[in-house]
Amino acid sequence: MRRIHSFASGPSCLPEEVLCEIRDDLLDWRGSGMSVLEMPFTCPEYRAIAAAAERDLRALLAIPDSHRVLFLQGGAYAHFDLLAMNLLTPGCSADYIVTGLWSERAALQARRHGAVRIAVSSAHDGHRGIPPHARWQLDPAAAYCHLTSNETAHGVQFNELPDTGAVPLVVDVTSDFLTRPIDVSRCGLLYASAQKNAGCAGVTIVIVREDMLRDAAVVTPPAFDYRRQAEARGCVNTPPTFGIYCAGLMFAWMRRHGGVPAFAQIAERRSVRLYEVIDELPLYHCPVDRAHRSRVNVCFKLATPELEREFLDEAARHELHHLEGHAAVGGIRVSLHNATPERSVETLLAFMREFAKRQRTAA
Amino acid sequence: MRRIHSFASGPSCLPEEVLCEIRDDLLDWRGSGMSVLEMPFTCPEYRAIAAAAERDLRALLAIPDSHRVLFLQGGAYAHFDLLAMNLLTPGCSADYIVTGLWSERAALQARRHGAVRIAVSSAHDGHRGIPPHARWQLDPAAAYCHLTSNETAHGVQFNELPDTGAVPLVVDVTSDFLTRPIDVSRCGLLYASAQKNAGCAGVTIVIVREDMLRDAAVVTPPAFDYRRQAEARGCVNTPPTFGIYCAGLMFAWMRRHGGVPAFAQIAERRSVRLYEVIDELPLYHCPVDRAHRSRVNVCFKLATPELEREFLDEAARHELHHLEGHAAVGGIRVSLHNATPERSVETLLAFMREFAKRQRTAA
Repeated sequence: MRRIHSFASGPSCLPEEVLCEIRDDLLDWRGSGMSVLEMPFTCPEYRAIAAAAERDLRALLAIPDSHRVLFLQGGAYAHFDLLAMNLLTPGCSADYIVTGLWSERAALQARRHGAVRIAVSSAHDGHRGIPPHARWQLDPAAAYCHLTSNETAHGVQFNELPDTGAVPLVVDVTSDFLTRPIDVSRCGLLYASAQKNAGCAGVTIVIVREDMLRDAAVVTPPAFDYRRQAEARGCVNTPPTFGIYCAGLMFAWMRRHGGVPAFAQIAERRSVRLYEVIDELPLYHCPVDRAHRSRVNVCFKLATPELEREFLDEAARHELHHLEGHAAVGGIRVSLHNATPERSVETLLAFMREFAKRQRTAA
Repeated sequence: MRRIHSFASGPSCLPEEVLCEIRDDLLDWRGSGMSVLEMPFTCPEYRAIAAAAERDLRALLAIPDSHRVLFLQGGAYAHFDLLAMNLLTPGCSADYIVTGLWSERAALQARRHGAVRIAVSSAHDGHRGIPPHARWQLDPAAAYCHLTSNETAHGVQFNELPDTGAVPLVVDVTSDFLTRPIDVSRCGLLYASAQKNAGCAGVTIVIVREDMLRDAAVVTPPAFDYRRQAEARGCVNTPPTFGIYCAGLMFAWMRRHGGVPAFAQIAERRSVRLYEVIDELPLYHCPVDRAHRSRVNVCFKLATPELEREFLDEAARHELHHLEGHAAVGGIRVSLHNATPERSVETLLAFMREFAKRQRTAA
C-alpha cells in the first residue's frame, strides 16, 4: 500500500486510523448488516451515528446549549449566499471584514441578498495581514459581522475573535475548524466545510445560536433554511449520511487523541518550525506579516515561478504532494491539518533544507 | 459478516461487488497513495474518477452531446426550488403534472419562484393512477412541463414520457433512474438524487440540454447555478467527491452487468411477481390502478394498521427490513432497486406467502 504525503488544502489527508475504521465497517457497520452508505437516514443505526457526531463535536468545542449544530450540504462557498439568505433580513445591513480571497468572495455573494458594508479590508496591501481593530468601521446596527478566521489562499489567520459589541459574529471557520479552541458562545454563527479537518467533501457544518434562527428569505430552499433544518434536526431532506459518519469518526478520533488543545499545540509547533526554516533560508520568502501568519496554511514564495515549479517537481519525487499555492496567489502552500502525519512534516522540512542547499551549491 | 435484506426507498442497498471495491481501495486508490476521501478535486486522479463516472453514465443512457451532465449537491428536494430558480425566468409560467406526494411538493416549492400551473392532478382520487393525457391542460407557452417519473410514496409510475409538444420536459427521475431506458433527447432536464440507484446520499445528478442553461435568478448560489456549473465542469466549488466516486462505481457495475436493458428486465420481472402475490392473496391489497403500478416501489396494504405492524415485525425476524410505507401514506412499501439481490426478493416472496397462510390458519 502506497501512502503519499499530502499537503492539500482540502479535501485533505485523513488519519490512517480513521480510514481503517471506515474500511473495516464498509460492508457491515457494527453488525447492523448494512454499510453506512446504505442506511436509511430514519433508521436507528444512522440516528445513533448522527447523534454521536453531534455529541462529540459539542464536547470538542464546548458548544453551549444555546447553539444548534447542523450538518448540511452545499459547501462553505454556497453558504456565502445561503447565510445571507438566512440572516440578512430586509432593511438590515451586514458588516464584512475582508482579509483575503475567501472573505472577499463571502462579501461579494452576500451583496446579492441585501446591504453589505466592508468594515475594513486588507486588499490595498495584498492581504498580507489583518488591519488593526482601531481602523475597522463597524456598524453597531449591523445584522451581523462576518469574518474568515483563516484565509487559506493568503495564509492569514486571526489570532482571536474580535470584539464587535452587540453585533453577532458570523465566522467562516472552514480552514482552521478544530485546529484551536474557539469560544462558540461569542459567535452568532460558525460554519465550515468538512473536507479539511472534519472528514470529506459534501458536508457543511453550521453552528448557530438559536436567536439567529430567523425567517429566511422566501426563496431559500427548505434544505438550506437554517431554522427549518434546526426544527427538523437536520432531516428536512436526506442528509449526506456517509459524510456525516466520516465527520463523526474524525471527532471521535480527535477526542481519543487529546481533543482540540492537543491539536492546537501540534499546529503551533509545526507551523513555527516551518516559518523558522522559511525565515532562516534566503531561498524562501513569506510575505505575511508575522503577527497574522496562519498556523494552518503556511504560504511562501521562491524567487521565480520557474524555481517554484522546480521545487514542486522535486518535492513530488519525495512523495511530497499538493504543495501548489492557490491559483489566485501562486507560490507554495503547505496546508497542515490535524490529520497531517508527523512524518510528512519531517520529510517536508528535510526536503526544504536540502533543496535550498542544492540551490546554493548550484549558484 | 451480517447482511440484511433492505427494501429501503433510499439510501438503498448497494451491490456487495461495489462495496468490496470501495473497501479495497479505501486507503490507497489504485496505487495513488490516497483514499478517494482525501483527493483534492483538482488532482488528476480525481479528475479521472469524475470523467469515468460521466462517461459511463452517458453510455448507460445514450445521453446525446446536446445534454450536459452535472453532479451537484442538495438532493432532489432542494432542486425543486433550485430548478425553478434556474429555469423559471420572469414572465414565464411552468406546468406541473401532479401524480403523488413528490410532484405535489415539487410544484409547491416552484411556486415560490414564479408562476406555476397544475396542468393535471390525481389528488382527487388519492394518487392511485395517472390521469389520461386527454385531461391534461397544458400551456403551450410554458417554460417547461415538470413531472415525477415514479412516485415513491404512492407507488405510481409513468410508463412512458408524455408528449408536451414544444414545451421542454423536466423530469424528476430520482426513484427510477437507471431502472429502465429513458429517451434523454426528449427531455430538457432530468434530475435524480443518487441514493437510490446511483450510490449514496449527497449527490444530485442533473442532465440538462444546453439551450436550457439560462440566466438563473440572481439569488441562486453559484454552486446551484446550472449554467455556471456546466461552464465550470461541476467545479464551481468542491464537489461531493466521494459520492461521485460511488456513483461512478455503480455506473461501471451496471455496464458490466448488461446495462439499463438488463436491469429494466429484472425490475419488470420482480415487480410482476410481487403484484401477482398481492393480487392472488386476499390479505394484501394494492390500491394503485394496474396500468400505472410502479416497478420500483411496490406499495400495498393489509386490513388494519395493527396487521401491518405484525407483518413488519415478523418480516424483520426474517432479516427483511425497511418495508414501512411512506409516513404520508402508510401501509407496506417494497422498494426494488438495481442492487436489490435476487435472494432478498425470493426471501420476501416466500415470507409474504407464509405470513398470509398463517393468517388464514389463525382465522
